Amino acid sequence: MIDRSWLGERLPGFLDDLDALLRIPSVSTQPEHAPSVAQAAEWLVVHLDDLGLEAERIDTGAHPLILAEDNTAGPTRPTVLIYGHYDVQPPGPDAAWDSPPFEPCRRDGRLYARGATDNKGQLFIQLKALQALRETHRRLPVNVKLLLEGEEEIGSPGALDFVRTHADRLRADVIVVSDSHLWSEDRPSILVGLRGIAYLEVQVTGPSGNLHSGVYGGAVVNPANALVQMLASLQDTHWRVNAPGFYDRVEPLDAATRSLLPEGYGDRVRAETATPALGGEQERSVAERTWFRPTLDIHGLKAGYTDEGAKTVIPARATAKLSSRLVLGQRPSEISALLMAHLRASAVAGVRVNVRTLSEAQPWRARTDHWAYGLARKALACSFPEPAAFVGDGGSLPIIPVLESAVGAPALLIGFGLPGANEHAPNEWLSLLAFERGILAVTELLERIGEGPTARTSTAPATGSGHV
Amino acid sequence: MIDRSWLGERLPGFLDDLDALLRIPSVSTQPEHAPSVAQAAEWLVVHLDDLGLEAERIDTGAHPLILAEDNTAGPTRPTVLIYGHYDVQPPGPDAAWDSPPFEPCRRDGRLYARGATDNKGQLFIQLKALQALRETHRRLPVNVKLLLEGEEEIGSPGALDFVRTHADRLRADVIVVSDSHLWSEDRPSILVGLRGIAYLEVQVTGPSGNLHSGVYGGAVVNPANALVQMLASLQDTHWRVNAPGFYDRVEPLDAATRSLLPEGYGDRVRAETATPALGGEQERSVAERTWFRPTLDIHGLKAGYTDEGAKTVIPARATAKLSSRLVLGQRPSEISALLMAHLRASAVAGVRVNVRTLSEAQPWRARTDHWAYGLARKALACSFPEPAAFVGDGGSLPIIPVLESAVGAPALLIGFGLPGANEHAPNEWLSLLAFERGILAVTELLERIGEGPTARTSTAPATGSGHV
Repeated sequence: MIDRSWLGERLPGFLDDLDALLRIPSVSTQPEHAPSVAQAAEWLVVHLDDLGLEAERIDTGAHPLILAEDNTAGPTRPTVLIYGHYDVQPPGPDAAWDSPPFEPCRRDGRLYARGATDNKGQLFIQLKALQALRETHRRLPVNVKLLLEGEEEIGSPGALDFVRTHADRLRADVIVVSDSHLWSEDRPSILVGLRGIAYLEVQVTGPSGNLHSGVYGGAVVNPANALVQMLASLQDTHWRVNAPGFYDRVEPLDAATRSLLPEGYGDRVRAETATPALGGEQERSVAERTWFRPTLDIHGLKAGYTDEGAKTVIPARATAKLSSRLVLGQRPSEISALLMAHLRASAVAGVRVNVRTLSEAQPWRARTDHWAYGLARKALACSFPEPAAFVGDGGSLPIIPVLESAVGAPALLIGFGLPGANEHAPNEWLSLLAFERGILAVTELLERIGEGPTARTSTAPATGSGHV
Repeated sequence: MIDRSWLGERLPGFLDDLDALLRIPSVSTQPEHAPSVAQAAEWLVVHLDDLGLEAERIDTGAHPLILAEDNTAGPTRPTVLIYGHYDVQPPGPDAAWDSPPFEPCRRDGRLYARGATDNKGQLFIQLKALQALRETHRRLPVNVKLLLEGEEEIGSPGALDFVRTHADRLRADVIVVSDSHLWSEDRPSILVGLRGIAYLEVQVTGPSGNLHSGVYGGAVVNPANALVQMLASLQDTHWRVNAPGFYDRVEPLDAATRSLLPEGYGDRVRAETATPALGGEQERSVAERTWFRPTLDIHGLKAGYTDEGAKTVIPARATAKLSSRLVLGQRPSEISALLMAHLRASAVAGVRVNVRTLSEAQPWRARTDHWAYGLARKALACSFPEPAAFVGDGGSLPIIPVLESAVGAPALLIGFGLPGANEHAPNEWLSLLAFERGILAVTELLERIGEGPTARTSTAPATGSGHV
């Protein structure tokens, strides 16, 4: 690990560099900001060059992809692929921010700006760890590849395409990503699971137009009544999915991972959501339910008359949007198909049913028995007061399984954002203490990875992605 | 019955009078038309005066109520209360009409204009029958009261209030209303049932805001999933309502009425709605299902994200509007209460449920064993080639049970509109043949009612409204 006091002296300069990147409004979702996204890419290419990395700008989609390399560690040393993104969410109205979103502001131990956590700040933890290692050790302990994209907030179309078609340029022994959360400022975490998704839209139609429920009610099958029956048939009241085969391929959570899940996540969820009571599979912890178990949630319902007051209509159509979050073993297309089949089979006579898939993503689970995970826990322990927890994220990051599969190496997800950091909301912030501890942890991790083959002896193979 | 050839000669003049009323755009639902509604009332007061009735304008609500009387038949003769309305539905865009809505146009045996059927034209059948009787017989065979309102299309607030508080001014032996349909141009009908309604809105809430379904799915109870389960629990897949007690008070349809229901209503419903297949209680005819059986229909569903594409949200709230159509015996407030109780009981932990009643109306069934029904069937048989059918209307006409109860006499609903007459749509029309036959039928009916006490000997009491 690099010297803490040395880092303390360099930190203001590192943050000034971060400020410069945060000032560029690289909002990838809004076409008018495309020049700013390009400007951020250019800024990064120059900055990476300053850090001694050979950086290349690749125009693969709407916004540039950056691939940089430093192979000075030599062929006997392992290679680490670092992934991050420099695009940001729209800031929303300035009035909702206490300081302007693109004028970085440090106060109360935090750095406030759009992108401070997601993902410029966390990306900078990686960059500044490389810079610190180079400045203090003259050369890096590992070979490094950096893959930085500007389309993460629009679904990574260009990066996914590039990764799938240029796997040869991305060969590495381990992938390191910082785009997640600490458990708390003192307790780091390693993200070991992401859920997949199968997202469906179902439309039920019946009569050719809306009908008077007085005139026709009792004989014409009401599409809204039919939809409700179909949706209800998908689950029991404990939200267990009834569609046959739904759970067949679910790979249970291993005991080792379960033992490292944090306690008290249920209390946190209750506090964050202000929900009257939690539900779901009561025999499992809230952490397991939300990170490692499949679900079925209705996202939207629309039928008939929904304005003020009473209107007596049999709606001609009723629609619902719903998705299942998926876990390791489940295949999105197979789950889509069996949910569709169940919906169609539960439709009554008198209505027509149209179901289609809107999106699908693979689930992912970390290979926690890989040597990199042991090294990561040790490295994090050197710079944080409490040991690392294993956590999941119930959402999907489609690029992670794709990267693992293409690179042929496990992904290690160590995040330095804090819960409540407002990543997609006004007043996004990054903890300055987490920034400093993160840099220390990453330098320690890269040094340990670089220590050589013994560190890499492991019970698990470093390649192969069959179980993704 | 008056002489057909006499009527043939007078008919053009009668239609000219109707045209004058149809030209007044008495749209009660649109405030800018209030002067026109008042103008139509004034026109009617003058016209009734011309017909020899003493007419009074009563300002009881937004638009005037008209009460007219002719008691020249004398105290030994029965009294008939005729109810109708002179307000009309908005016409909608002129472009949708083949001829302007307030410029009456006769073509192809029809009179086209807003209000031609609903209700100015049918109201005129009553008025012109009185005029014909007076002109040909010198005086009316019965005493007559006319109650004409200008607020029917906005829910009859003033008329309901007046009827409830001035029952003494409305005493009669029978109420006659023409605001319904013939079965066909050749086959008249008597409307013998109206369904009531209990209309509810249910709102399910959970977390304090919309949540990311990836992060929280599996532990936070989804209000949309919960709503769907609650609604589905109300019914089985044959649409039988599961709420305990729902059917307890339902008074079955009597065999005499059932024997007079028309055949082939199912074919008509299928043709009108283009629905793939009819549903509901297969062991009952479509006529019985839609006119004389209770229902439960969802009118609106709203939750979460309903625009294009996929959004992975756990909605903070989900709402539904639904109603039960009610039949004789069922009490709207009792049905509301038991549906609410069932919804609340089927709610899972983790959500809050709010249910409220938006509207209620009493069901109504004709006292078909009353002497007036036999007379009506005979009178209709004199002017139409086919015998009258008994029909129902699955909707609600709240004023009918209120009138019956206040007046203390049965209502006789004989309508002369035709199916497909576009009452609430562009190109509303009235059959000129139905207009003529209607006038003949009403004169015949009033003459028969006036024939004296023997005609009124009946197995049923002429007063009392306990079973409404």
